[in-house]
Amino acid sequence: MEVAQVLHMNGGRGEKSYAENSLVQRKVISITMRIAEEAITNIYCSTFPTSLAIADLGCSSGPNTLYAVSELVKAVDEVRRKLGHQSPEYQVLLNDLPGNDFNAIFKSLAGFQENLKKQMGDGFGPCFFAGVPGSFYCRLFRAKSLHFVHSSYSLMWLSRVPEGLEGNKGNIYMASTSPPSVLKAYYMQFQTDFTLFLKCRSEELVAGGRMVLTIFGRRSQDPSSKECCYIWELLAVALNEMVLEGTIQEEKFDSFNIPQYTPSPFEVESQVKKEGSFTIDRLEISQVNWNAYDNEVHQSAAFEDGGYNVARCMRAVAEPLLVSHFGEAIIDEVFSRYGEIVASRMSKEKTEFVNVTVSVTRKG
Amino acid sequence: MEVAQVLHMNGGRGEKSYAENSLVQRKVISITMRIAEEAITNIYCSTFPTSLAIADLGCSSGPNTLYAVSELVKAVDEVRRKLGHQSPEYQVLLNDLPGNDFNAIFKSLAGFQENLKKQMGDGFGPCFFAGVPGSFYCRLFRAKSLHFVHSSYSLMWLSRVPEGLEGNKGNIYMASTSPPSVLKAYYMQFQTDFTLFLKCRSEELVAGGRMVLTIFGRRSQDPSSKECCYIWELLAVALNEMVLEGTIQEEKFDSFNIPQYTPSPFEVESQVKKEGSFTIDRLEISQVNWNAYDNEVHQSAAFEDGGYNVARCMRAVAEPLLVSHFGEAIIDEVFSRYGEIVASRMSKEKTEFVNVTVSVTRKG
Repeated sequence: MEVAQVLHMNGGRGEKSYAENSLVQRKVISITMRIAEEAITNIYCSTFPTSLAIADLGCSSGPNTLYAVSELVKAVDEVRRKLGHQSPEYQVLLNDLPGNDFNAIFKSLAGFQENLKKQMGDGFGPCFFAGVPGSFYCRLFRAKSLHFVHSSYSLMWLSRVPEGLEGNKGNIYMASTSPPSVLKAYYMQFQTDFTLFLKCRSEELVAGGRMVLTIFGRRSQDPSSKECCYIWELLAVALNEMVLEGTIQEEKFDSFNIPQYTPSPFEVESQVKKEGSFTIDRLEISQVNWNAYDNEVHQSAAFEDGGYNVARCMRAVAEPLLVSHFGEAIIDEVFSRYGEIVASRMSKEKTEFVNVTVSVTRKG
Repeated sequence: MEVAQVLHMNGGRGEKSYAENSLVQRKVISITMRIAEEAITNIYCSTFPTSLAIADLGCSSGPNTLYAVSELVKAVDEVRRKLGHQSPEYQVLLNDLPGNDFNAIFKSLAGFQENLKKQMGDGFGPCFFAGVPGSFYCRLFRAKSLHFVHSSYSLMWLSRVPEGLEGNKGNIYMASTSPPSVLKAYYMQFQTDFTLFLKCRSEELVAGGRMVLTIFGRRSQDPSSKECCYIWELLAVALNEMVLEGTIQEEKFDSFNIPQYTPSPFEVESQVKKEGSFTIDRLEISQVNWNAYDNEVHQSAAFEDGGYNVARCMRAVAEPLLVSHFGEAIIDEVFSRYGEIVASRMSKEKTEFVNVTVSVTRKG
């Protein structure tokens, strides 16, 4: 499977869209934002550039797309006001794979820019936006053209399904029952991809440029640990049921694997050190409940069903992958079962996503 | 009417899409390309930048979108090979209004880039692409960030329908029966818009940066001359027929006007001089037959019907404007009548679009 051709969050604004089902990802951006703000104000204050280029990699399409960027721009503006400086020109570069719904982003930009201007008052900006389609495992931008790179909940996606997963029968991701060769194949693909990512960005960032990456990951040293694999394991349970009932062919199921790797902080750190272009400023772990609506006060009835929410969230993320492998026909059934399974487990145990955030500086 | 919210070429790849009905526009790019090539190789050879930023304004969506850009890149590469220089990094910035189908462009980019690489051989590029949504009557890019601006068949579109067209009854554009106040209102809007365009680009281009603009225009000093107004006049005939039959309300018809101005070379020249940021290197006129398939050898039966082709081409361009004013229901009927009217006139007289091309340099 060509991940770059297939992977994208569900487009549009409908019930099953990523735009309407990405509250978990928003929470992650929100709880890691202070790290990103610290990094961007740091690069701003170290050189006071007249033009500041910010790239968001894996920007998706929906309310989160412009959320991180607007917080970053606000943080810089607050500092430059305090210091009495003129506003830099902002260049915001929104990147995602070519299947992402850029049209939807672009249609929302005029309103967003108007609001931003109002909020920020006189003396702010200008702020220019561009969409940059393509895999972040390739060069995307001119050499030394970026000051700051942000990426949240994107880098766990691999460039491809690793080779050598034939032994992963009954699973769709790393699991406690996966043989060591499968875990090794996943880890090697992560190492290759993440190193390439760092190399490309090191060419694109100015010396002293900063990068804050948040990755869906784990605390444990064990890559098949429940904290990162459980969410996919439950999807495998749903698919397996349908195999047993004959709705899905067993070979189809056995040949499906999620192109994702959920690294530990140690794995992220050692890869950054090995690649060599960046120094690490921060390396932190946070967590967010599977059901992001958990602590919301004004819940509609629909949002009270945690299993339903999590299933919708995962559907918005994984539907194109599943459709590309299994076809359209089974999708509703898969996610209906998945919702029930998730709900039942959530009522019995604590379910959280673990986030690994690393803040790095391009060596001079 | 907010032109920036409404105007866009028909999206997608279907029978009525701009992508499938833009051969006239392609011919225009092709016959004016030598002027653009001369200008871009000139700016390249005057500074040999390590990175060359090219913007195409009003890039649309379809085969033309990447056509101009690829020709420009090829021209530079030929020169740099002859001179034995290393390839610059190319930054290609594709601009159009937010309603343009950027998703379609982005999905075609991977294939395009692969082809380009193959054609150009080793040592070429890299070539980075970005989509920049927004009106070119605003700032779109950072200060002094562009080396070359190309725009073909876009600048005749005004930022808005001019005010003061109440006297233009029975017409939808300037016409021989339009009162002088209407012609004046159109010209004033063109002056305002074109000046703003030049001012914005003068801020974005580096000193010595070049710009080649081709505009649907006219030879005559008379703005209501048939050579530029006839194509819209015939659409007015079709709409008028439907008013007489009661399918379209008269007030609806009377309040519809095309937000376009087709300038003469003299008008373009005097506006550039008045604005003051650019020197004029070339100012040329060319023409292209209404039916771009006219000289094609392998014509399918459909393409032999010139009226049908022209109507489809104009539909791909004007449908969103008409739908926004009249609604969806009348559209098929309008363009079916228009096709017949155009066919009948084309069989009796020579019908051509006139193109005004101006090549300018940003003063140092």
